[in-house]
Parts: sequence; structure tokens; C-alpha cells
Amino acid sequence: MVVVMSLTAEPEQIKAVQQRLEQYGYEVHFIHGVKRLVIGAVGDRKEIASLGLEAMPGVEKIVPIMKPYKLVSRESKGKHSMVRVKNVNIGGNDLTVIAGPCAVESREQLLAAARRVRRSGARVLRGGAFKPRTSPYSFQGLEEEGLKILAEASEETGLVTVTEIIDEASLELALKYVDMVQVGARNMQNFQLLRQVGRSGKPVLLKRGLSSTIEEWLMAAEYIVSEGNENVVLCERGIRTFESATRNTLDLSAVPLVKGLSHLPVIVDPSHATGMQRLVAPMARAAVAAGADGLIVEVHPDPCRALCDGPQSLTPEDFDSLMSEIRTVAAAVGRVVREAVCSV
Amino acid sequence: MVVVMSLTAEPEQIKAVQQRLEQYGYEVHFIHGVKRLVIGAVGDRKEIASLGLEAMPGVEKIVPIMKPYKLVSRESKGKHSMVRVKNVNIGGNDLTVIAGPCAVESREQLLAAARRVRRSGARVLRGGAFKPRTSPYSFQGLEEEGLKILAEASEETGLVTVTEIIDEASLELALKYVDMVQVGARNMQNFQLLRQVGRSGKPVLLKRGLSSTIEEWLMAAEYIVSEGNENVVLCERGIRTFESATRNTLDLSAVPLVKGLSHLPVIVDPSHATGMQRLVAPMARAAVAAGADGLIVEVHPDPCRALCDGPQSLTPEDFDSLMSEIRTVAAAVGRVVREAVCSV
Amino acid sequence: MVVVMSLTAEPEQIKAVQQRLEQYGYEVHFIHGVKRLVIGAVGDRKEIASLGLEAMPGVEKIVPIMKPYKLVSRESKGKHSMVRVKNVNIGGNDLTVIAGPCAVESREQLLAAARRVRRSGARVLRGGAFKPRTSPYSFQGLEEEGLKILAEASEETGLVTVTEIIDEASLELALKYVDMVQVGARNMQNFQLLRQVGRSGKPVLLKRGLSSTIEEWLMAAEYIVSEGNENVVLCERGIRTFESATRNTLDLSAVPLVKGLSHLPVIVDPSHATGMQRLVAPMARAAVAAGADGLIVEVHPDPCRALCDGPQSLTPEDFDSLMSEIRTVAAAVGRVVREAVCSV
Amino acid sequence: MVVVMSLTAEPEQIKAVQQRLEQYGYEVHFIHGVKRLVIGAVGDRKEIASLGLEAMPGVEKIVPIMKPYKLVSRESKGKHSMVRVKNVNIGGNDLTVIAGPCAVESREQLLAAARRVRRSGARVLRGGAFKPRTSPYSFQGLEEEGLKILAEASEETGLVTVTEIIDEASLELALKYVDMVQVGARNMQNFQLLRQVGRSGKPVLLKRGLSSTIEEWLMAAEYIVSEGNENVVLCERGIRTFESATRNTLDLSAVPLVKGLSHLPVIVDPSHATGMQRLVAPMARAAVAAGADGLIVEVHPDPCRALCDGPQSLTPEDFDSLMSEIRTVAAAVGRVVREAVCSV
Repeated sequence: MVVVMSLTAEPEQIKAVQQRLEQYGYEVHFIHGVKRLVIGAVGDRKEIASLGLEAMPGVEKIVPIMKPYKLVSRESKGKHSMVRVKNVNIGGNDLTVIAGPCAVESREQLLAAARRVRRSGARVLRGGAFKPRTSPYSFQGLEEEGLKILAEASEETGLVTVTEIIDEASLELALKYVDMVQVGARNMQNFQLLRQVGRSGKPVLLKRGLSSTIEEWLMAAEYIVSEGNENVVLCERGIRTFESATRNTLDLSAVPLVKGLSHLPVIVDPSHATGMQRLVAPMARAAVAAGADGLIVEVHPDPCRALCDGPQSLTPEDFDSLMSEIRTVAAAVGRVVREAVCSV
Repeated sequence: MVVVMSLTAEPEQIKAVQQRLEQYGYEVHFIHGVKRLVIGAVGDRKEIASLGLEAMPGVEKIVPIMKPYKLVSRESKGKHSMVRVKNVNIGGNDLTVIAGPCAVESREQLLAAARRVRRSGARVLRGGAFKPRTSPYSFQGLEEEGLKILAEASEETGLVTVTEIIDEASLELALKYVDMVQVGARNMQNFQLLRQVGRSGKPVLLKRGLSSTIEEWLMAAEYIVSEGNENVVLCERGIRTFESATRNTLDLSAVPLVKGLSHLPVIVDPSHATGMQRLVAPMARAAVAAGADGLIVEVHPDPCRALCDGPQSLTPEDFDSLMSEIRTVAAAVGRVVREAVCSV
Repeated sequence: MVVVMSLTAEPEQIKAVQQRLEQYGYEVHFIHGVKRLVIGAVGDRKEIASLGLEAMPGVEKIVPIMKPYKLVSRESKGKHSMVRVKNVNIGGNDLTVIAGPCAVESREQLLAAARRVRRSGARVLRGGAFKPRTSPYSFQGLEEEGLKILAEASEETGLVTVTEIIDEASLELALKYVDMVQVGARNMQNFQLLRQVGRSGKPVLLKRGLSSTIEEWLMAAEYIVSEGNENVVLCERGIRTFESATRNTLDLSAVPLVKGLSHLPVIVDPSHATGMQRLVAPMARAAVAAGADGLIVEVHPDPCRALCDGPQSLTPEDFDSLMSEIRTVAAAVGRVVREAVCSV
Repeated sequence: MVVVMSLTAEPEQIKAVQQRLEQYGYEVHFIHGVKRLVIGAVGDRKEIASLGLEAMPGVEKIVPIMKPYKLVSRESKGKHSMVRVKNVNIGGNDLTVIAGPCAVESREQLLAAARRVRRSGARVLRGGAFKPRTSPYSFQGLEEEGLKILAEASEETGLVTVTEIIDEASLELALKYVDMVQVGARNMQNFQLLRQVGRSGKPVLLKRGLSSTIEEWLMAAEYIVSEGNENVVLCERGIRTFESATRNTLDLSAVPLVKGLSHLPVIVDPSHATGMQRLVAPMARAAVAAGADGLIVEVHPDPCRALCDGPQSLTPEDFDSLMSEIRTVAAAVGRVVREAVCSV
């Protein structure tokens, strides 16, 4: 870390900073600049916050040099990870597509969706049973009933399943019925939940928060991995900006950026990012071209009747076209959309 | 609500929208514009999401006219509410100051802080026992031990207390020891937690999320109030913007804006908003001048040794000066900083 | 337009709004909602601002229904435009690549860059002669000398040229030497300059402002086209958001979104958007997959010696690899990177 | 400056960075961290951009230590400046109010406004003659005719005047008729214009750009001062954020922050920042309490008939109340709203 002293820092203030650093085991280097003194401190970043340096008199600012995350960093592993959800790989050479409705609304709806997305080439089925909704008056999900329907759809189609969990109770239920759990954007910094998911060992889809920096997102993943669960897949789903023409702004640069910083696989959600049916296909193609390891796409048998997120859901027909476009773009960047081994 | 049809909407698409609206009990009005058809639909906003209109062919967009919140709206009550935390009022003519350290670190630290902030004129003591931290490697709070210390400080000084809760377990503990619970910025859309807090009936300090719109913030309050708990105090604490010179951007316009939209009291947190000691006093004065019902300020007996948020904590001396500035500005806008009745 | 009256609007206030609307030739429709009165006003959007309705007592808000832009709207033309810069097309089936250094630094540097980018497949040469720099102490460009070098490079290589103009004087010089002028992000709302560029008739590359909405961007294009110059190419180059890990956030969704709203061609600048060499290629591929009509990429013979934007400049070797990746992705989405007819 | 080398930096890469630094006259210090090498380079920040270090192999990032602005920095002067516009001071102990309509619409309108705002206590009259408008179809200002009306109003009332200039031509006209020129938010980085304004020597009101950081704003002021014009007043007028409930987000923390970084006076524009009449008074009070040196407020004799910005304009009656509130708050923070010496 680098400690920048203010122009008016006095000798005893500099001395105090030096002592504090040395007391915590840092090695101290002074650099006398044209106007300012800069102190280089060599040691472990974990301690920075506890040092209280920024509040010491004469200190102008602290510039951390090391990244705050360790286990999820690219450096810690050297190569990219692959997360295995039963017989499906996320990461590596595969381009994996997760699809299904925003919410599980009924047995008929989900089974219809599952059959169609499987036929088009999805490998993972999504469907929400616990819906975090902005309004207390909106549909909140079928809860355990929804999970059972997901399990049935998985059994019938051979698709593996993912569902969002929103607290400890929903996590415990989900662990019984589905193959992967999703931590949603609004819970990305629900640190208790991250720890519980970490302890569960279950594959996790960790969505980026609406206003989370890349660093905060990786720190959220660090919470999960630090509990011993390495099966984390990151999901970029749009950030909140001043632009309101789309629901959120899909930050696609995050894909190659994160793949340089972390070994974890990264997928993209063009449905929530844009909020508009007609932007889903172009942004899905773009995500693949940018190097994403997969996609998560909302597909509903009848979007106009969807209880949730209809405007951004594809019809099964649209999804089928999307999959064939995706295959072509994936091939252009050296990726494979693997076919499910047909067990049905 | 107003449904704007696209330029190319066909008669049968218009018909379908009309039927969908009528089926849900809406009264339908057609306005034939120069180029576009606009459909006015009179009915209850609660249903909008379930109608799926935006996904219907020929529909360009939906413009809601009514506000999505009801119980917290100014209109529902006509006048401003006052929240009572034991013998302390938040709202009305009073200007109420909450103060104390970011985290409860030890019995000595908290009691020292409590005595000093009480003497300077604070009425409520803050102190975190459960700390949501960006890094899993940072200090996470003393948990129940911290709550006991808060209760002891309250007993000794007569101050009422507030602490942040982060999940159901911490809420249950907090209900036993403190007078008011805080839902932090990162949990503003943790809807399960909002419901639990709502059912508890306890006074709640609801911080605005880092990237939450005013409408989403009021909807979060609606979650709590819709469970029967009207004792909600809103707290503006800065939003995330492109400007990184301050920790967040304090959106002070939110104070008069929200007081026009809702009957709930609104206070301001200049410490978290700015992240810098030297900005706390000017922004505290500004908040009072803008019409805030109170302030929440971080005060630490020794900011350089704080385990959390030292750089933005005031010393007891600085806080004492701040309180006398606040009294003057409060008087200038017709507010009173009420003295505690001295029971000590 | 729709005028939403406040809950407490009185009959004479409603009457006054009606009269104001009718006086300006609007046709008025009343919709009596559950609580509020909504007034539909049919007429020409151009007049809205002059009506002063939002300031009238009893008016809560105005919701415009029609888009504020006309000439650049998709509806005005029905199909997509193609802009012709001498023998090069931007739009249509072609995928056109503009490349070259941020700034013209010397004859040697620019000629070296021009030869290399031409060989790799670029059709347009970029190079700044007037540089808007954040600091008055940074290199500001070679001015007319730089334009002469551009003209010479064009003559030698057959590439057409584009350069940024920053005021009337630089525009007049540029008109003599280059084939296309660029209005930079910081000047997107320099309305005088937009008008002058409009009157010049020269092909224009209009970059999106750092914090401009899609609608403001199209209104800037409307300024140019309303002066009779239809040769406008839009360029998405990243917007300013809270995320500081990249220089800006590339808003790639803007590409398909704008192509739905406007007939103008849209290209993407992955160099300025990301500010990082290693993100240029993935975001360039993504832009093509999203449907962009072209790219503008910074290439420098020796990025470490660049006087401007070195960290985001590709070497000629990197650019060559990029071009072959681009050809593959372009083919996957049905686009052609046309070869220059070899005149050299 | 501090150069952070990447984990994989090789000895010859380190050597090359060292040589580049030494060649440009920097003194080089090595700090060997736990994992990374950090190079401290002592020298003049002006040169950083030209060094091209960020593009050199093995370099991870550059962390500048010194501020990029010099002449406007607090350090360069030691105390706060006062800008004198004829007989009016901005800065120091005075709280100076600028008021008037958004645009000069007619002689009658402006004279009526001038008389009223003078009577209420404003010292400077504002009025736009050149209006930068988002739409080419909106009212664009009376140009020279408007300036003449401003001059007449000044003569009659004794108020000094300020008007926005948008290019060299409008600047030259304004220099003849008004006492202070305003560089608007959209032109804050129109560097040519900043230079011209700098050379003119005229007092300048420099508005912060919609998406400009504090540092960029101060660099824009540096452009003006570096041409020899020290009469710069900064104006915070709201930044663009995700929140759309107000027109912009007033960043009031910028006031105390900038007063710590620069010696220039800072005023606040609550009208453009909020865009809503009813928020102007509370945010004006807040600005004074936060330490602003003045305010600029839109006042129109008949806001409902304003050709521009009616919804945010105060009536003369509202402005009169505002001024008496302002006097009280100013007194509470030790400021004086000085009365004009009555020459009329």
C-alpha cells in the first residue's frame, strides 16, 4: 500500500504513521516527492482497514496496490476454472445456455417451456420459485410447489436446473430440489446468504449487483469460495446508469475484464440487462463474441400471459432462432454449443 | 395507465389489448393521435404487471399514471407522521440527532461514545453489532455481545438505541436489546427482511439503497408498512454515481422531494454519504436547512483506532461543535433540537 | 401528449390547461381516472416546450407520446441509410473499419500507420489534428500541418480520411483536407458546431456524449440533418457510469436499439470505450455480433511512444489479428468486410 | 507518480520503465512488495501523459500522486479568492445572489424581472440570449437584441449582468454588453472556448458539466486561469445520475470539497439542478448552509408563459420569500447578504 501524506504533514505525524505501520508488521519505505512525502508499506492487504491510517492526522489518502480478493483471482489458480453442474460444464470450451421462464407459474407452463428449450439446445432450465419483487403487491412465486415442478421437469427432460434463493429458508428448500442456486443482483451483498451458499457446496450462479463494481462482485464471490465452495459462476446482467432507454446497461466489457482478473467462468443475462425482447438476440450474440462462457435467457411459452417479465421473454420460436445464431457465432470464436446426450 | 400503441399496430392487435384490459376490469378510452393510437385505461395499478400488456404485439409502451405505493404516500395520510422511539420523537417540529460509532468495538469504547454524544445533545445512540462488510476478511461485529453493550449504554445514559440487522437471526436478537432497528442500504430490497421487520412492529430506520430510486425506496417502506408497522423513518445516505471524489453522492434533494410524496419522516446520514470527516459538518448543516427531520452521525472516541469507518468519524470534540452549529441552523428553519430530560 | 393533473387540481385550473391547449391548436380529451384527471392532447410535439404547461397550477406532469426527433427517425425513411464517403460505404451489408492513431504526431508515424492498417483491411484512416485535452498542459495536436499529412497519407494509400473538428475554424480547415469530419463526445451538444457541420454537407461521424441519452444523441443528429446534411454516421463510444475499472462503459445495447429507432448507420469505438488494449478485440467482435455497421479502432506503430491514448492503442500486429477475427464474426452475422480495390 | 508493475513483469521490462523515467528526468525508487514491484517516480506531473508508461509491457497501472491542476489549487494561493464583478463581490464573507429568467424573451419581461429581483435583494441579473437547446425546434434566444435588453436593465436597476456564451461569436458580442460571462454545463470541456474566455479577462461563471468529475471541472478552470484570467467563479448545477425523479442530482458535497481543493469561489444553481419549483427554496437554503458563496436562481414574472424552463422558475413572490429565508440561514453560518447601495 502507498500512503500519501498531505502537504502540511508534520514530522511527528509522519513518525506516528511509520510507527503504526511497523507495529502491524509492515516494512516502510519513504519516497520524498517534489512536494509531498509518499510512504510505501509492504505487507498484507487484509489488515489495511484495521489500521485506521486514513483517519490519522497528516494522511491525505491511502492507495492500495494489491487486489483485495485472493481465492477467486486469476493469479491464485493460473488457469480458468470449469464448474460442473451434474453432467453439464460451464467454462472451458463449452458455450452453455440456461433458459426458461422468469417464474414457475404452473406445471403446464414450466413443462412446456422445459421441453421447448431443451429441443432448441439449452442444457440448464431456469425458473423462479421465490421472486424478489419491487412491489409487495406483485406475484411472489410458488415457493416449494415451484421447486417440485422444477424437479419434475428436470426428471422428464434431463435438463439440470437453477433457481434463485433469497434467504436461508429458501436455500434449504432449493438444496433438496435443484442442481444450482442463483444469488440474485439484489442479494449480491447479502453476506450472510453468501456464506450459507458457500457452506452448502452447491454450484452457484452469482449475479452482479445493479450498482456493484467489478471488485465488489469478485469480493462477493470471495465470500462464497472462502467458505470452501469453488463452484461459482459469475453472471453479468446489466448495471444501473443514467440511460433509461434500456432497463439496465449491459456492461459487456466486464466479460473479458473479469476473465483477466479471475479464474471463474462468466455468463451473461441479456434478458434482464435490456428488458426488451428485440434486444435479447443481438446482445446474446455479442456476449458470445466477447468471450462469455454461457448465457441465461428468459423463454416463456406465452410471454403476453407471463406473470413476470413478459416484455423481455422470448417465445420458444424466437429462442430456437437465437440458438442457431448462437451456434454460428460460437463457432466463429472457437466455442462449441454441446448437444445434450439424448436420454428422453 | 396509458398504453401507447406502435405506429404499425393493426386493428386486431388493438382489439386484443382492449379485450385484455376489459377482462381485468379496466375502463378503456381511445385517443387517436396524429400518428399513434393511445389507450387510456382506468383501474387499479396493482394489476398492471400481471396484465402482460407490454409483451402484446402492437404495444409500444405502457405509461403508469398512478404511483405504485399507497400506504406510505402523502395522500394516504394528508399530514406528516411522527415516529416515536420510547421518549424520543422523529418528525414533527423536532430535529433529532442519532450519533455513535460505526461498530460497537468494546464496552469502554461504546460507553465513552455514549456519554459524550449524550452530553453534546444526541438523543439516540447508534452502534453496529452485525456489520455487513465488503470483504470476508474485515471485522464483522461483536454480535449479541455488542447488543448487550448497547443495552447497558442505554441504561446508563438514558439514550434510546438503534442497530443494524442483517437477517432474521440478527433481527430476533436486536428486538430483545435495542429500541429501533436499521435496515441498511445493501438490504433495502431484501424483501423477506422488510416483511419480518414489518411484522415486528419495532421502529425502523430504512436506509436508501446505493442505487435505489426514490420510488423503489418508498416501495421498500411500503413492504414494511403493509405488514402493519407504521414506525418507519427514511434515511438518505448517498447514492452511487460516477463521481468518486466522495464515497457516495449525497442526494439532498431527496429530502424535500420525499416529504412531498410521503408522510414518513426523513433523516440524513452525512457520514456514510461523504466518507470524509471534513465534509460531515457542512453536509449536516445543509441537511437541516433542506428540511430533514434528523441526522445520523458517526462519532468515535478515537477515530484513528476505529475498526470501521474511521476516516468519516467525528471526534467527540468535533461532534460537540457540530451540534452547536446544528442548533443555530435548525433555529433558522424553525426547528428545535430538544434537550434530553436529564435523568442521569 | 398526456397531461396528468394533480389530485388536488381545481376546476378552474383544469379549465386553464384546456384553454392553453386549445389555443395552441391541440385537440383535448379528458380521461377521468380512479383518482386523477388525465388530459390527452393531440397535436404537434414541437410546440410542447413553449406551452409552459408544467408550470401551470394543478399540473402534476407531462408525458410526451411522440418522439422529439423526426428526420432521423426510422419511421421517416422506412429503411436504413447508407452513408457514402467517396468510394467507401458505411451501412448496408458492409462492415467498415476505420483505423489509425489517436493523434497525427508526424509524417512518418501517420504514413506508417496508414500503410499498415490499409494492408490489414481498414478502409478509412483516422488521425487527430485538433485534440480536445482535459489538461491545458497536454499535447494539443499539429493542427493544419496534421491535416496535410492526412491528405498525403490518403493520396498514397487510397484510404479515405476522418478527423475530429472542435470549432468553426478547425471545421473550415478540415473541409479542405479530409473526407469526413468527426464531432467528438465532448461536442455532441455543441449546437452551433452541429449546425455548421450540417451546412457543410460533409459526411459526419457523430460520437455519443459521455452522459448523453440515446434520445439526446438522436436529437444532436437531428440538428445536423435539419440543416440538409443526411450523411451522418452515429458512433457509440462508451458512457460514464459508476464503474471505473474501464475508462467508460461501452453501451453496446445502444446499437440494436438505435437501429430500431433511426435509419442512420451506427458504428462502435471499442478503444475509447474501454481504454485498455486487451479489451479492444473482444469488444470489437461483440460490436460486430450486435449488428454494428462498422468500427473505429486506434492503431499506433509504437503505442508506448504515443503522445495520446497509448494504453488503448493496438500495435499493427494486433490490429491485423483483430481484422481476421472480425472477418469471421462478420461472416457469422451476414456481413462483409469489403476489400479495397487495389490502386496502389 | 507510482508505477505498479504486473506480477509477471520481467527484469528487462522493469529496466525499460526505469530508463524511460530517468530519460524524462524522474528520480526512481524501487519498492519490492510481497508479490509486486512498485516504482516510485519523483518529478513533474505535467509530463505523465507523454511518457506512454501505461502502454509499456509489464506495467499494470500508473497511480498519479500530485493533483493535475496547479493555478486553481488551494495550495497555490493559500487563501480563498474573491471575484469582483464591478461593485459586486463573489466570495469572502458575502453571500451573493444571481437571479433572473432563463431566457431574455422581451424588453418588458426582462425589465419586470430585473426590478423585482433587485427589490428582493439580488445583486446580479441573469438572462440568456444564446440558448443551447436539446432540440433544433426549440426557442434559441434573442441573441444581440437580448444582450441590449440586458444592458438596458443593468443601466436602469444598477444590477450587474451575466449571460451564457456558446462560441467565439457570442463571446465577442457579450463582452460588449454584459459584466460576466457564463460557460454552460455543455461547454465545460469546450477547450477552445475556455481559452478565449481566459484571454478576455472578463469574470466567468463556469458551470460544472453534467457528467464531469470535480477534477475535470477544476481542470476546465485551469484552462481559463492559465490564459491569465483569475476571475473564475465555479457553479455546481447538478450531475447526471440514475435518479430521474429530479432533473439532475445536486451534488452539494462538491461545495465544501472544492473549497478545500481550490481557492476559487463556488456558487450553486438549485433551479437547473432540481428542475422543480418546489425544490428550489429548500436546496437554496441547503447550499448556503453547506458554505456556498452564492446562488443563481431562475425567476420569471410569469413562469407559465416562460419560453424556457418554466417548471423550475420561481415567481417574484416566491423569490422574495426565498431571499428572506436565505438571509436567516446565511446569518446562521456567518454570512451576509449585502444590500445594493441604492442608486435608483
